[in-house]
Amino acid sequence: MAAEEGQVAVTVSNKQVIFNNYVSGFPKESDMSIVVGEINLKLPESAAGGLLLKNLYLSCDPYMRPRMRNSSGSYVGAFQPGSPLSGYGVAKVLESGHPNFEKGDLVWGSTGWEEYTVSTEPGQLFKIQHKDVPLSYYTGILGMPGMTAYVGLYELCSPKKGEYVYVSAASGAVGQLVGQFAKLAGCYVVGSAGSQEKVDLLKNKFGFDEAFNYKEEQDLAAALKRYFPQGIDIYFENVGGKMLDAVLGNMRLRGRIAVCGMISQYNLESPEGVHNLASLIMNRIRMEGFIVSDHYHLYPKYLEMVVPKIKEGEIVYVEDTAEGLDSAPAALVGLFYGRNVGKQVVKVADD
Amino acid sequence: MAAEEGQVAVTVSNKQVIFNNYVSGFPKESDMSIVVGEINLKLPESAAGGLLLKNLYLSCDPYMRPRMRNSSGSYVGAFQPGSPLSGYGVAKVLESGHPNFEKGDLVWGSTGWEEYTVSTEPGQLFKIQHKDVPLSYYTGILGMPGMTAYVGLYELCSPKKGEYVYVSAASGAVGQLVGQFAKLAGCYVVGSAGSQEKVDLLKNKFGFDEAFNYKEEQDLAAALKRYFPQGIDIYFENVGGKMLDAVLGNMRLRGRIAVCGMISQYNLESPEGVHNLASLIMNRIRMEGFIVSDHYHLYPKYLEMVVPKIKEGEIVYVEDTAEGLDSAPAALVGLFYGRNVGKQVVKVADD
Ligand SMILES: NC(=O)c1ccc[n+]([C@@H]2O[C@H](COP(=O)([O-])OP(=O)(O)OC[C@H]3O[C@@H](n4cnc5c(N)ncnc54)[C@H](OP(=O)(O)O)[C@@H]3O)[C@@H](O)[C@H]2O)c1
Ligand SMILES: NC(=O)c1ccc[n+]([C@@H]2O[C@H](COP(=O)([O-])OP(=O)(O)OC[C@H]3O[C@@H](n4cnc5c(N)ncnc54)[C@H](OP(=O)(O)O)[C@@H]3O)[C@@H](O)[C@H]2O)c1
Repeated sequence: MAAEEGQVAVTVSNKQVIFNNYVSGFPKESDMSIVVGEINLKLPESAAGGLLLKNLYLSCDPYMRPRMRNSSGSYVGAFQPGSPLSGYGVAKVLESGHPNFEKGDLVWGSTGWEEYTVSTEPGQLFKIQHKDVPLSYYTGILGMPGMTAYVGLYELCSPKKGEYVYVSAASGAVGQLVGQFAKLAGCYVVGSAGSQEKVDLLKNKFGFDEAFNYKEEQDLAAALKRYFPQGIDIYFENVGGKMLDAVLGNMRLRGRIAVCGMISQYNLESPEGVHNLASLIMNRIRMEGFIVSDHYHLYPKYLEMVVPKIKEGEIVYVEDTAEGLDSAPAALVGLFYGRNVGKQVVKVADD
Repeated sequence: MAAEEGQVAVTVSNKQVIFNNYVSGFPKESDMSIVVGEINLKLPESAAGGLLLKNLYLSCDPYMRPRMRNSSGSYVGAFQPGSPLSGYGVAKVLESGHPNFEKGDLVWGSTGWEEYTVSTEPGQLFKIQHKDVPLSYYTGILGMPGMTAYVGLYELCSPKKGEYVYVSAASGAVGQLVGQFAKLAGCYVVGSAGSQEKVDLLKNKFGFDEAFNYKEEQDLAAALKRYFPQGIDIYFENVGGKMLDAVLGNMRLRGRIAVCGMISQYNLESPEGVHNLASLIMNRIRMEGFIVSDHYHLYPKYLEMVVPKIKEGEIVYVEDTAEGLDSAPAALVGLFYGRNVGKQVVKVADD
């Protein structure tokens, strides 16, 4: 529907997080700027089949770092210098030009890092049906990271009761769920993370069998040998580099590695070398990369599994919420220093 | 059966290839010695359920190099300094203490690098049924390397008509078959090898669509881009190291890599680093290692497929035959310098 007849379109201020320019090395807050523009709260003619969105939550995700590079090195396009960043978020539909959505709907999916967004690709948005859970969960457990944990663990690795599972970046948006899902499958689960606080969370809140602070280990391979004297059946790879090498040296026969991400490599100009790949042969290992969006057709099935478990407290989810768009650049940069404890969300507006 | 009553056991000379000591760097002929001992042509009491074998052909295989290392780094045990090497071969049964075999049977499988071998593990031997093909083929196309090509390509990579297949070490025991099997599956096939002679073989004898000499390429990634402008669907990995990195940069969406071997790494004290593993994620690639002996239950099915094709000339096989046990050390060492053109066999005796 276009704006109702006779309704006067209001112009409001629209705060945005602008991507300044391509980044090398670690991203910095100064790679982004906060600007305040204006927006006419009416779907423009040029976006006829689209949606006008009010953003409520924005998601800080590691894959946004590769998008800061001027190259085809990422699985999604690079950010445009001078334009707002884009990413996953939760939003309210203010106006709809698309038959699948109507005013007042809540959606999650691709949106802009700003208060209001004109979405021209509503096909990339999911309508939120379950509203008796925190809305922010649609940036995490009920959104892209949740599906990532589900697909990577269950679809790629087929965990069996009694198998030994290792998760790196285990306290994060994806990792905390991988661990809990693996426990549900009857596995023995060990996670690593970068602080004592996170290690405690893993053991006490998420029910991992063991956890360790990888930053305090001189020899990662030896640490893994300590936690997995019998070897690792399933590795959920979030980190890459040295950690992958250490894991390869500790895999069990017929092990599986879901290659989800390699955050330790995202800020390097050239990636580190991984030396222990001969282990793939000796140990008959399958290593498989995936991109969650290829698997979104499984989302309804996932919701059916996970929503009841959230409500019954069988699965918990820890978020780290930054308040307001002004805090978004620091929140995003923080991922690469491990500052987030749990899923990093930015709260933009109340409703 | 023990030796027949009244039969006098003959003592004959038994030439052996002795493994001198653990090797570092490239193996040398002097890492092995030829010695001539004696053997009583009678199955000893201590090997009651075993076989007395006369070796006809011995197979030179790259995996024998890791067995020269004093470590658990190989998927089979290390050779014993002072004892003969062991490996795959074709042999005639001179005396059998095992119900599945009888005198006169031809077998292939695990045997010693010597003229006569007392086999205490007849379970590791296959009885040869098809004798109207060259017997030496049971060290190659009809033996372990044939099964390796079959399993790695068909079972792990499921080639589909029109897919783009790349094979490294393509003129060797395994590679020449991978290429021909991929052609049978309707794929476009490119191979690399280390000399012009081998490149010619690939194109003119084995029917590869294209082939190149990797030693003449400054930039392997650029060479692959030239031969696969659209990218590689299936990579049959024989080589590892820099070649794997170049391939990872040229894989297509949903590509598959059968990790068969990494011969370029076998003589290094520590393996090279592979840098482009992020490609697994972006391109949703599955990379899987395997050991052929896990799949020997498929051998009858394989024979059913391949024997008729050999007889009808639909598949050809090139061997490089060294004459006599004295030439075995040089033949084995030659693998690591690419001296073999086709499957490297050692002919030990006529029959
Ligand atoms: N394939 C896909 O479709 C897909 C989808 C979503 C996410 N991912 C990937 O999944 C991984 C986890 O994502 P997430 O959203 O759950 O992020 P997250 O874990 O919530 O946040 C990133 C965490 O990574 C850790 N980290 C940062 N730099 C590191 C380094 N150099 N070495 C080791 N750990 C480091 C930090 O925790 P510590 O304190 O523990 O260091 C940080 O908190 C990322 O690699 C991401 O790219 C892939
Ligand atoms: N997983 C298993 O169960 C299994 C079973 C059998 C074999 N394999 C592996 O399969 C591979 C091929 O074995 P094969 O029996 O067919 O051997 P092969 O190809 O007949 O002989 C080895 C060939 O490797 C090439 N080569 C040697 N050093 C190299 C280097 N540094 N870089 C690149 N190429 C090099 C040489 O050919 P060029 O002239 O082309 O350099 C040489 O002729 C090996 O890696 C082997 O370990 C694995």
